[in-house]
Amino acid sequence: MSATTPVPAPDATRVAVIGLGAMGLPMALHLAGAFPVTAFDPAAERLDAATGRGIRPAATPAAAAAEADVVLLAVRDQAQLEQALFGTDRESGADGVAASLPAGGVVIITSTIGAEPLRAMAGRLGERGLLVVDAPISGGPVRAGAGDLLIVVGATNDALTLARPVLDRLASTLTIVGSRVGDGQILKTINQLLAGVHIAAAAEAIALARGLGVDPEVVVSALADGAAGSFMFSDRGPRMVEAYRGHSEVKSRLDIFVKDMAIVADAAAAVHVPTPLAAAAQQLYLIAERQGLGAEDDSRVVTVLSPA
Amino acid sequence: MSATTPVPAPDATRVAVIGLGAMGLPMALHLAGAFPVTAFDPAAERLDAATGRGIRPAATPAAAAAEADVVLLAVRDQAQLEQALFGTDRESGADGVAASLPAGGVVIITSTIGAEPLRAMAGRLGERGLLVVDAPISGGPVRAGAGDLLIVVGATNDALTLARPVLDRLASTLTIVGSRVGDGQILKTINQLLAGVHIAAAAEAIALARGLGVDPEVVVSALADGAAGSFMFSDRGPRMVEAYRGHSEVKSRLDIFVKDMAIVADAAAAVHVPTPLAAAAQQLYLIAERQGLGAEDDSRVVTVLSPA
Repeated sequence: MSATTPVPAPDATRVAVIGLGAMGLPMALHLAGAFPVTAFDPAAERLDAATGRGIRPAATPAAAAAEADVVLLAVRDQAQLEQALFGTDRESGADGVAASLPAGGVVIITSTIGAEPLRAMAGRLGERGLLVVDAPISGGPVRAGAGDLLIVVGATNDALTLARPVLDRLASTLTIVGSRVGDGQILKTINQLLAGVHIAAAAEAIALARGLGVDPEVVVSALADGAAGSFMFSDRGPRMVEAYRGHSEVKSRLDIFVKDMAIVADAAAAVHVPTPLAAAAQQLYLIAERQGLGAEDDSRVVTVLSPA
Repeated sequence: MSATTPVPAPDATRVAVIGLGAMGLPMALHLAGAFPVTAFDPAAERLDAATGRGIRPAATPAAAAAEADVVLLAVRDQAQLEQALFGTDRESGADGVAASLPAGGVVIITSTIGAEPLRAMAGRLGERGLLVVDAPISGGPVRAGAGDLLIVVGATNDALTLARPVLDRLASTLTIVGSRVGDGQILKTINQLLAGVHIAAAAEAIALARGLGVDPEVVVSALADGAAGSFMFSDRGPRMVEAYRGHSEVKSRLDIFVKDMAIVADAAAAVHVPTPLAAAAQQLYLIAERQGLGAEDDSRVVTVLSPA
């Protein structure tokens, strides 16, 4: 990514970004290095942070999308997504993306909300002649700003072709799961099942090591590269050890897993597949949230099992 | 390991191996390449398999240990270990290792039985002037026969010094966890907690993918190298996919996790540390065993969640 003022090509895809949070802002800034970008966020300070760095601010999602070819949505959950697409005024929907994006335009949805809710929204957008790319993202804010995200995609070829320049700018790994909207959500749902369970398993391992009087750092270094290893054990294990030393940098909020394990539970129940470990992990994240840890790093879940 | 007839040095450590099962036999054969080895197994056909390949058979554990410097025990569980050490005749204990191994001799225990039971046995052996090395192993039969095991050790320096030539012959990775007997068991217990939970999590991921109509192979290849990855997801995930195609090679028996998750549960309850995911995994392995899968590959646990 160049640090100089971006100069998009005259015929470049016009992009609107809705949501300038932890992921949306770095994505918007990185996109602005290659495309003309308009953006909206309900928080004035976030919109200000983007304005003047090559991004044109808009007063509503509808205003941001009015002259766009591709709209990228980077909002937290299903409720925010409904609002951004279909408006806060549920009668007219006048300020939502769907009210202004010209027919044939593409909506890229990067949020994790589950396959069924996304398919319902895609149906409503399709009635207006809009195309949808189901593209949940992983990787965190730093990678979001460097075009280094993992994106799993469900989309028709038509939608994918139009969205491709934007996706390629953001992703270092782009996996086309299938042609159905929702296929990306399914893969992300399974990703979160594994990630959420592995973090909770790491917490049990660290807590048990402490309980049995063995240094958790020895446990992580002895086991991380063997049959007991996981990305999360290597990544969160040391952060759990740090948590007991009072360090508390928030790299990934715990309440993301409160949201996402509920999506896992809903998806599994809908198809009658038992997922007892995911269910146990969901309860742990809920307990942690009830203890006031929702905005803390997810590694803090270890303190539910072994408080001090 | 040389394929020629082994010729141990005249002053080499004399080793007795008790238990010639899936791990004990390949370890005994590999040790026989460097040391004089005597062995015992209650099954005549196993003892016959070792005899004539450089290993001297013995009629009882006591007979095997009578002229040994180091006794290596490779039996399945606590009950077998008690019997091998202290005899089937509980009054005299005459046929157990402890009845014949000369004072100052070393007992290496490679079984996974948990820290507390091992410490109790080490206490009894210590009363007879015997040293104990707590050395649970990981790696499977092929690596056992190649000196390529992972061994986690709890032992005093004196015991470790005497056992070291034998451990070095067997291990490619030797981690000295601490000087207390039981420290090796603790690390192995935590290893099994993570391994058992990760296999069950992989099963939930594969079963949910099938339920949601996404190819499990796509899921494994898309997610294995990212934040959702684990050794077990990469290793057992493809074996779970194979299980549905009727393939059923047994690389690691499922009932090992029935035994080891009970050890995890006992250890965690003893120190009052909650381990809800390990508990859920334990129940899954018990259900699988009840369904007749105890002697099958542990990847078959996926069929509990998604039968066909």
